[in-house]
Amino acid sequence: MKVILDLDTGIDDALALAYALAHPDLELIGVTVTYGNVPVELGVRNTLVLLELLGAGDVPVFAGAQPAGFQVKPISAFIHGRNGIGDVLLPPPRGQVQQKSAVEFLCRAAREHGEDLVIIPTGPSTTIAAALKAEPALADTRIVMMGGALTVPGNVTTWSEANVAQDPAATDFLFRTARDVTMVGLDVTLQTLLTTAETRQWRGLGTRAGRVYADMLDYYIRAYAAIEPDLGGCGLHDPLAVAVAADPSLVTCFDTNLACETTGTTPGRTIGDVARMQELHKAAHVAVDVDAPRFVAELMDKLDSLLQQH
Amino acid sequence: MKVILDLDTGIDDALALAYALAHPDLELIGVTVTYGNVPVELGVRNTLVLLELLGAGDVPVFAGAQPAGFQVKPISAFIHGRNGIGDVLLPPPRGQVQQKSAVEFLCRAAREHGEDLVIIPTGPSTTIAAALKAEPALADTRIVMMGGALTVPGNVTTWSEANVAQDPAATDFLFRTARDVTMVGLDVTLQTLLTTAETRQWRGLGTRAGRVYADMLDYYIRAYAAIEPDLGGCGLHDPLAVAVAADPSLVTCFDTNLACETTGTTPGRTIGDVARMQELHKAAHVAVDVDAPRFVAELMDKLDSLLQQH
Repeated sequence: MKVILDLDTGIDDALALAYALAHPDLELIGVTVTYGNVPVELGVRNTLVLLELLGAGDVPVFAGAQPAGFQVKPISAFIHGRNGIGDVLLPPPRGQVQQKSAVEFLCRAAREHGEDLVIIPTGPSTTIAAALKAEPALADTRIVMMGGALTVPGNVTTWSEANVAQDPAATDFLFRTARDVTMVGLDVTLQTLLTTAETRQWRGLGTRAGRVYADMLDYYIRAYAAIEPDLGGCGLHDPLAVAVAADPSLVTCFDTNLACETTGTTPGRTIGDVARMQELHKAAHVAVDVDAPRFVAELMDKLDSLLQQH
Repeated sequence: MKVILDLDTGIDDALALAYALAHPDLELIGVTVTYGNVPVELGVRNTLVLLELLGAGDVPVFAGAQPAGFQVKPISAFIHGRNGIGDVLLPPPRGQVQQKSAVEFLCRAAREHGEDLVIIPTGPSTTIAAALKAEPALADTRIVMMGGALTVPGNVTTWSEANVAQDPAATDFLFRTARDVTMVGLDVTLQTLLTTAETRQWRGLGTRAGRVYADMLDYYIRAYAAIEPDLGGCGLHDPLAVAVAADPSLVTCFDTNLACETTGTTPGRTIGDVARMQELHKAAHVAVDVDAPRFVAELMDKLDSLLQQH
């Protein structure tokens, strides 16, 4: 299937990118870049650099819009490094961002590829919501998003997850408009874990890509250790969304219709929409359980082949 | 199986009581009364009166503790009537409340009946938590509670359900101590619906119990119509917990370990306990979907036989 990643290219986005390239069932036809872990401009740079590192410099990269006054949160800079990729230094990209906007690309792709397309947003919903407003056909496109938290607390506030918290109105619009959204949120991503055992394996490949990915993820694991000392590794938030796009059987889903609160005491809370509870069509598939060992094993298996080549 | 209901006897509690008596698989060995829809004293009166109405005056009734300064919420008085049973007038009970406390009875029952016992709390968790503190054996007793909301908003605040909101610390203690708790919350009870079609059927039985239950539920349905005009009936909160105790296959559950927030911005929110996410034993079974047509059909079928006799 054809996939588009909508990344705010920090470290777990970098891993999602590699996994999308490594997965034999996925054809990455483009990356749109949004803000979040890093500003759009830096996200574009990171995406271009990583695509080139992984031998995929031909995959087009499109910039999304960034709200005026957006600032990277201190916690994001801490977790992803100031440059978003664990302060690993990589030369400037040879390629450039596309002239077309992220929204234009998403709309055109939805018209061209229809049911064969899956969109995987791993940042705020801003770009996806704008595309859904611009192109009604996108409402029928399968979307597998990393974001939200239904059965567990959030990570920005106790009720709100970081991606969704950036633009609750956009996530709410997404939930009310898209007809097939899989929410891969903290409910499952906190159950996945990458440790230094895995990064050691990449480093052992002896390739440049293996070393870069090991360095990035080691940075991420160290940041996690400072924040959640008991976890013993880092959550695999964004890569899990890619894995679920390719193989939905990795997760158990609860089907419902979702809303994202935009006002009141708990903005950014993803929760069932009581007004649409009786509707027979459940647009949202909330991943509530994951086969974490299988996911990590498959991730390692496929990434090994990719990182070995570059 | 032997069951104990822990009721705050308003109208849906009255229906839960009738269903427990009507269900051939359940043996109601006692009712403990807590505060909530009504104060304990009125709940005891209502329970005694209804048991006698239904030919079950021999079922012992025990009073739980009520927090100092407890006041019935105006919304509860509106929904359940000032007397808690839809302002239906019934003569004083002949029987009396037991001398033993609700907590003493629960502890003794847990010791005596072990695995054969199911406790069904349909009000605040105060009494159950006190019993769990007093008798460790209760932690292994199956508990099927009506309360909480995991995947949908609350009904007191957007994050808190009415029973749980009364005593979040007690619910939190329950979630952290009991090893087998089924949470029948708003996630599923709002999907169940009783309408005047059903109450007409009871009235048509021509019995006193049929008329009393029709009058009570008509009051409840009218109150619901004032608050949620689009619903077209009333939610069957407490009876669903009884039905699930007898037949867990009526609901689809999501297994997890729960907490109930006691401090912070969203007290009374029932949510996954991140600290116990990795634990293999999942103590809570959260009902997230219900076969509502089958539930209502079975409720009507069994209640018909009971109400017909009295």
